[in-house]
Amino acid sequence: MIPRYSRPEMVAIWSPETKFRIWFEIEAHATTALANLGVVPKEAAEIVWKKGSEATFDVERIDAIEREVKHDVIAFLTHLSEIVGPEARFVHQGMTSSDVLDTCLNVQLVRATDILLADIDALLAALRRRAFEYKLTPTIGRSHGIHAEPVTFGLKLAQAYAEFERNRERLVAARREIATCAISGAVGTFANIDPSVETYVAEKLGLEVEPVSTQVIPRDRHAAYFSTLAVIASSIERLATEIRHLQRSEVYEAEEYFSEGQKGSSAMPHKRNPVLTENLTGLARVVRGYAVPALENVALWHERDISHSSVERVIGPDATVTLDFALARLANVIDKLVVYPANMQANLDKLGGLVHSQRVLLALTQKGVSREDAYRLVQRNAMPVWRGEGDFLTLLKNDKDVRAALSEAEIEENFDLGYHLKHVDTIFGRVFGSTEA
Amino acid sequence: MIPRYSRPEMVAIWSPETKFRIWFEIEAHATTALANLGVVPKEAAEIVWKKGSEATFDVERIDAIEREVKHDVIAFLTHLSEIVGPEARFVHQGMTSSDVLDTCLNVQLVRATDILLADIDALLAALRRRAFEYKLTPTIGRSHGIHAEPVTFGLKLAQAYAEFERNRERLVAARREIATCAISGAVGTFANIDPSVETYVAEKLGLEVEPVSTQVIPRDRHAAYFSTLAVIASSIERLATEIRHLQRSEVYEAEEYFSEGQKGSSAMPHKRNPVLTENLTGLARVVRGYAVPALENVALWHERDISHSSVERVIGPDATVTLDFALARLANVIDKLVVYPANMQANLDKLGGLVHSQRVLLALTQKGVSREDAYRLVQRNAMPVWRGEGDFLTLLKNDKDVRAALSEAEIEENFDLGYHLKHVDTIFGRVFGSTEA
Amino acid sequence: MIPRYSRPEMVAIWSPETKFRIWFEIEAHATTALANLGVVPKEAAEIVWKKGSEATFDVERIDAIEREVKHDVIAFLTHLSEIVGPEARFVHQGMTSSDVLDTCLNVQLVRATDILLADIDALLAALRRRAFEYKLTPTIGRSHGIHAEPVTFGLKLAQAYAEFERNRERLVAARREIATCAISGAVGTFANIDPSVETYVAEKLGLEVEPVSTQVIPRDRHAAYFSTLAVIASSIERLATEIRHLQRSEVYEAEEYFSEGQKGSSAMPHKRNPVLTENLTGLARVVRGYAVPALENVALWHERDISHSSVERVIGPDATVTLDFALARLANVIDKLVVYPANMQANLDKLGGLVHSQRVLLALTQKGVSREDAYRLVQRNAMPVWRGEGDFLTLLKNDKDVRAALSEAEIEENFDLGYHLKHVDTIFGRVFGSTEA
Amino acid sequence: MIPRYSRPEMVAIWSPETKFRIWFEIEAHATTALANLGVVPKEAAEIVWKKGSEATFDVERIDAIEREVKHDVIAFLTHLSEIVGPEARFVHQGMTSSDVLDTCLNVQLVRATDILLADIDALLAALRRRAFEYKLTPTIGRSHGIHAEPVTFGLKLAQAYAEFERNRERLVAARREIATCAISGAVGTFANIDPSVETYVAEKLGLEVEPVSTQVIPRDRHAAYFSTLAVIASSIERLATEIRHLQRSEVYEAEEYFSEGQKGSSAMPHKRNPVLTENLTGLARVVRGYAVPALENVALWHERDISHSSVERVIGPDATVTLDFALARLANVIDKLVVYPANMQANLDKLGGLVHSQRVLLALTQKGVSREDAYRLVQRNAMPVWRGEGDFLTLLKNDKDVRAALSEAEIEENFDLGYHLKHVDTIFGRVFGSTEA
Repeated sequence: MIPRYSRPEMVAIWSPETKFRIWFEIEAHATTALANLGVVPKEAAEIVWKKGSEATFDVERIDAIEREVKHDVIAFLTHLSEIVGPEARFVHQGMTSSDVLDTCLNVQLVRATDILLADIDALLAALRRRAFEYKLTPTIGRSHGIHAEPVTFGLKLAQAYAEFERNRERLVAARREIATCAISGAVGTFANIDPSVETYVAEKLGLEVEPVSTQVIPRDRHAAYFSTLAVIASSIERLATEIRHLQRSEVYEAEEYFSEGQKGSSAMPHKRNPVLTENLTGLARVVRGYAVPALENVALWHERDISHSSVERVIGPDATVTLDFALARLANVIDKLVVYPANMQANLDKLGGLVHSQRVLLALTQKGVSREDAYRLVQRNAMPVWRGEGDFLTLLKNDKDVRAALSEAEIEENFDLGYHLKHVDTIFGRVFGSTEA
Repeated sequence: MIPRYSRPEMVAIWSPETKFRIWFEIEAHATTALANLGVVPKEAAEIVWKKGSEATFDVERIDAIEREVKHDVIAFLTHLSEIVGPEARFVHQGMTSSDVLDTCLNVQLVRATDILLADIDALLAALRRRAFEYKLTPTIGRSHGIHAEPVTFGLKLAQAYAEFERNRERLVAARREIATCAISGAVGTFANIDPSVETYVAEKLGLEVEPVSTQVIPRDRHAAYFSTLAVIASSIERLATEIRHLQRSEVYEAEEYFSEGQKGSSAMPHKRNPVLTENLTGLARVVRGYAVPALENVALWHERDISHSSVERVIGPDATVTLDFALARLANVIDKLVVYPANMQANLDKLGGLVHSQRVLLALTQKGVSREDAYRLVQRNAMPVWRGEGDFLTLLKNDKDVRAALSEAEIEENFDLGYHLKHVDTIFGRVFGSTEA
Repeated sequence: MIPRYSRPEMVAIWSPETKFRIWFEIEAHATTALANLGVVPKEAAEIVWKKGSEATFDVERIDAIEREVKHDVIAFLTHLSEIVGPEARFVHQGMTSSDVLDTCLNVQLVRATDILLADIDALLAALRRRAFEYKLTPTIGRSHGIHAEPVTFGLKLAQAYAEFERNRERLVAARREIATCAISGAVGTFANIDPSVETYVAEKLGLEVEPVSTQVIPRDRHAAYFSTLAVIASSIERLATEIRHLQRSEVYEAEEYFSEGQKGSSAMPHKRNPVLTENLTGLARVVRGYAVPALENVALWHERDISHSSVERVIGPDATVTLDFALARLANVIDKLVVYPANMQANLDKLGGLVHSQRVLLALTQKGVSREDAYRLVQRNAMPVWRGEGDFLTLLKNDKDVRAALSEAEIEENFDLGYHLKHVDTIFGRVFGSTEA
Repeated sequence: MIPRYSRPEMVAIWSPETKFRIWFEIEAHATTALANLGVVPKEAAEIVWKKGSEATFDVERIDAIEREVKHDVIAFLTHLSEIVGPEARFVHQGMTSSDVLDTCLNVQLVRATDILLADIDALLAALRRRAFEYKLTPTIGRSHGIHAEPVTFGLKLAQAYAEFERNRERLVAARREIATCAISGAVGTFANIDPSVETYVAEKLGLEVEPVSTQVIPRDRHAAYFSTLAVIASSIERLATEIRHLQRSEVYEAEEYFSEGQKGSSAMPHKRNPVLTENLTGLARVVRGYAVPALENVALWHERDISHSSVERVIGPDATVTLDFALARLANVIDKLVVYPANMQANLDKLGGLVHSQRVLLALTQKGVSREDAYRLVQRNAMPVWRGEGDFLTLLKNDKDVRAALSEAEIEENFDLGYHLKHVDTIFGRVFGSTEA
């Protein structure tokens, strides 16, 4: 997490101020629940809520206490008792630090996820809009980087849309993974705190109760969560890579928006580089890298060890802040992408009709030529074209063996772009549930 | 995937024989669908089915053809035409290799997942049985490897059960991720094949239609799939690590079953080592490692490049075979785990009553002692016990400040094991939906 | 490790036959050393050597014994005693299994590394030859995928050469990491075996003595080793990616050799795809993935646990076999790479002289124009060219402000390709130690 | 990089102020070199040095310019021209941004590495001191977590010393990897700048000349660098794990220093947890995670793309700052580690003499008993001891078959602790080059 790749709303979730506020809410809700049970005085709970809600927690003061006691939750509780007064002794009754820490982490992750979901929604909206804009704009489809057969630019974006819709579903599932609350005490047995406190706090915070915790909420949940972020990052890389390819000098079918005043290169004034999508490619690597320690965090010792904590202090903010930034940047790139349909057509025309080779092959087999022979016939006419030695249609018409099976008109029939686009609506219907914008 | 860590049923899914049989089924179903559309003769489809179903595909022959044409699907189709005869020319009409390859991979992954789900079910059954067996067997709960407060051995297994139930859900979701079929042609436009063929084949194979493919099925699906396997592997490591700890010489609360004739060490005849769970720890690392290239596979170039293929040829079998082996081994370890309740009790008694320190702390605060003072009082009596210099209960009774708040009887009340176990049923109810086996 | 991506010489290193032969040599050398010390009879050592050298170890028999005793080294020793007879009891005296296993693994890794070094040498030779072949063949240099300034194709290969020379050095260092021998007994104290045995065996096997082992050779060595393989794999990916880019339809400056009879696509007969380098891209991911578990293997418990073993049984063969295959494939790709200098020139000419923009910028500043003004002047003439609206040279000549600083002749001077290539010899001299092939 | 896990000296290397100062030095040295060549006026170079050296670069001003021009080096140069005046136009002549950026990154990495080397030296010093302190303190050696044979606590630390000495060597090699300088222009051809400028700047900055750069310094260097940090992190985890095990309640042979006022648990006042080494375990995971994106950074497109940049902006600081913190924390843990030799002896005695089983085995074979029979004899006496049913020495003396080979005295001879420690000096001599502190 560095300012360059951060957005304030997500950063705020991970600030000490937010964290202490959530800690307070967990503690105060738990105190209320305890008051409802008659374990602590109702007035005490009210005073805790009142004074804590009015107060601003002093991060530096808490840090100073922590330097002495070397324990962050104790430092906070000490500071809280400075604010609340004697009733503070009813706070944290029967609880353990992890009840606060783990539940807080999950509250933060839930809030972060809600931002990420909104980010994906914005990206989906941009993809949808541009996909319909270029729904029937022909462009060459490429496999292995080699021209294959025509597609449309809208189809490329429809594929990205479908991919990010899947990512949205994954993120919703990942949110469920970490939307749990544990208030179960030192080893998860509720020895000193009634399970109803956990139920109460969970409901207030919009979380589910963790069925069985062991001081900590189990980290397979977080491993699944950060792995999901890694998958989303990889999809970002895929779309970013597509744009980088399209902006290549030799392809030049699309281009990142280049603002007035922007300089592409300190040395070469003509340069317009796909720096945003290159940047996204790098950020995707960074987010992916965070999945590795999250997976290693699962195997804690016995009821808990604290090795996961330092990892999460780093990757909790870093992964969510970076992914938020990346998703927003990608949405912006798509939104403003400059598209060059004329260049797409020019590239499409480049291979002298070779993109129609499969149709010719099929037409030959339909006329009774064996698949192997048809392949040979097509390939022997395709290869000269590939080498720049002729036009595919002309060569086919002049090939005796081809003509033995197909008339001139029958050959020409196979050189029709519309043929390739006839099912675009089918696909748009599947992806967007509609064939109209 | 090495024989040592493989089980035959899973290995069979990845054999060339299975692969070619699935390829045949895809091609034959597609031919039937084409026949239904009137694109190819019905009789041709019937002959393909008949001759192909009766035939054994000759792996060596296909390999020999591939060495010449350097293309695996063409090699298979050539061999198929040797078997089927002239009607073979109606096979693969309008399709591209990836239609076969990607759909086949997903069929294999689905089958592999069904085995993995059965593996998890067997593990869950073992965990459930042993959890109820030791539901109320007290043992010390440990945080940071340090004795904390009592739990039961059944609770440890209940936690593992809940974790693998989550893994089961994740795996069911992961199965959905990869249970798709694409028959959409060279760049996914259905230019030469009607979308209804895809729908037909998908239904026959028990798959969903891929909404938008681009010659390939998008690899974010597979990245999510292999990431899920990595999470499951990490949970295996957690449970394996628990058992390794419990079998340590100094702990010795449980032990892997040690068969007659087994030798622990070539040098030290007395050794009984937790080799199975150590082995599982290593296998978990291996499976986790496979998630990294799966994530890197997402960002294919344009409509497709083939860089994912070599990765999947390796990790497709390796990850599923290894995880299958690991899950089965873990189920067996749990099933036969030798548990030593007496040693658990002995360890529980080791810290001279310190496990009750929190209860004393709470009792003090209930009597009006401030949290900070109560902490100090408990700690100054706990530390000598920790150093082996006395018994906690006795020391507390002799502490004037403690006695100012609590009578001898009130102190003693806090030294009760049952107190810690009163909510075991609550937790079992949450996890197993029942408090009885 | 799958046959498709394996070469026999490397596979043979990891066969059971090779392993047992190395085990035998370790045991027999140790027996000789013990005989030299007078601990065992000299005749016994001689008989062990004689009978063991003549024998073929029966892998199935050893496996059968292992199934009973569940210990691989004991199984081997039992089989050895079947071959050697009563003198076998002098074998393995004071040793522990890991003395054999760890030393054997390192012997295998050393042998594997020697093959990998030869692979790199072959690749370096191919790169050198082709680099000199195209030393002065101009081609456009690209940053961000955008045309920048001219380079030569030889320079591209010179960079790859320098990179693989670094990889060679890294691999030599990595070989040193794992070229150690430990014969130090059950916990590394030499309690039952004299350190001179270790020294003797190490020397015979061409290894260094491990200064301090703890039953096992420390795994930081192997982590460093497999991390080095991951770096080499990443360099393979870099060069493979370069070729994939050059073979793109729109670029088409170079192409993998396409043999007679090879078919690029089952559907599109015209396709010639960079399948080898795409394959290498995937294999690079696979090899990189193996570094992760190797790093996790370092933190063994106490003097040793055996969790590393299952990892190494998999990644030992898999990483070395895959990297060997990939390096050999890459050398072959480079060796036979089809290069199209005319296409390079055509691409170079594509941007209408824009590649000379920096020179014009510098010429302007040399004449006293401020850097900022010069940049603006160049950019305003470059942008129309970029949009396909004119020729850079002509536009500059018609720009009054440019002409205020530079005459027509002075402008033209900056449009000279040779200017960019004047230091190719300098770079070749640095990389190859020579400017001639 | 979060303040909690950061130390100021390392953080300072990565501050904008440091970065701009290094940028200035690179630019100013290059200007001097250009002046020496007569390309720019000597007085201009002098003015650049004088004004730039006196100035404080205004980070906010540079950021403001960057927001407009969207290019960091151009923003800096613009600010520099505000400071230097008209002579600033001679700065950056013929250079490209990466000449500055890549060389600066390497300067930062070199400085970071020098701190890390000092960290390792401090750790080595602590390990050496404590190793000699406990050179002959007996403790049980454990394989698989199971008691094996005696070692000394000094040997454990000697192993760690040897491991970190290897890490030191690796880090020195990694420093060489990234200690290079490139001033080679837009595509590395020196088209607009003489190679002697690069040589001059490299020498002034204490770097080597990069033999062939392509605008960027090749990233295989950085991949190797960050992989080395990952290996070091893994060694940290190994030593941290050892201490965590030793501090377990049941083992309790050593303990992290626990300061006055420190609180182990908010709930359980008696707890003293190995939180520092648990923290280090987590930080090791974090540092390892950074190696993955560093490896993915290698395969840049053509002469360069900028995807590596965002990765390095994150992991450059994060990996070095975290590793610096972790090494310093580990040195402190070792320095102050509280060691309990009496507990070590108590654990050593726990298994009733079983640690001597191998010696008995060997003694039997020396007397002509076959290895298999000896193993069986020892195991049948060991197993009851393992189950807590007797004393190993007594059982052996009562075993007729054992006594057939060994007298009582001969059996007793094998129960001698000193026997296991006789080669400690050998090992210390190997590791420390001396057997005395």
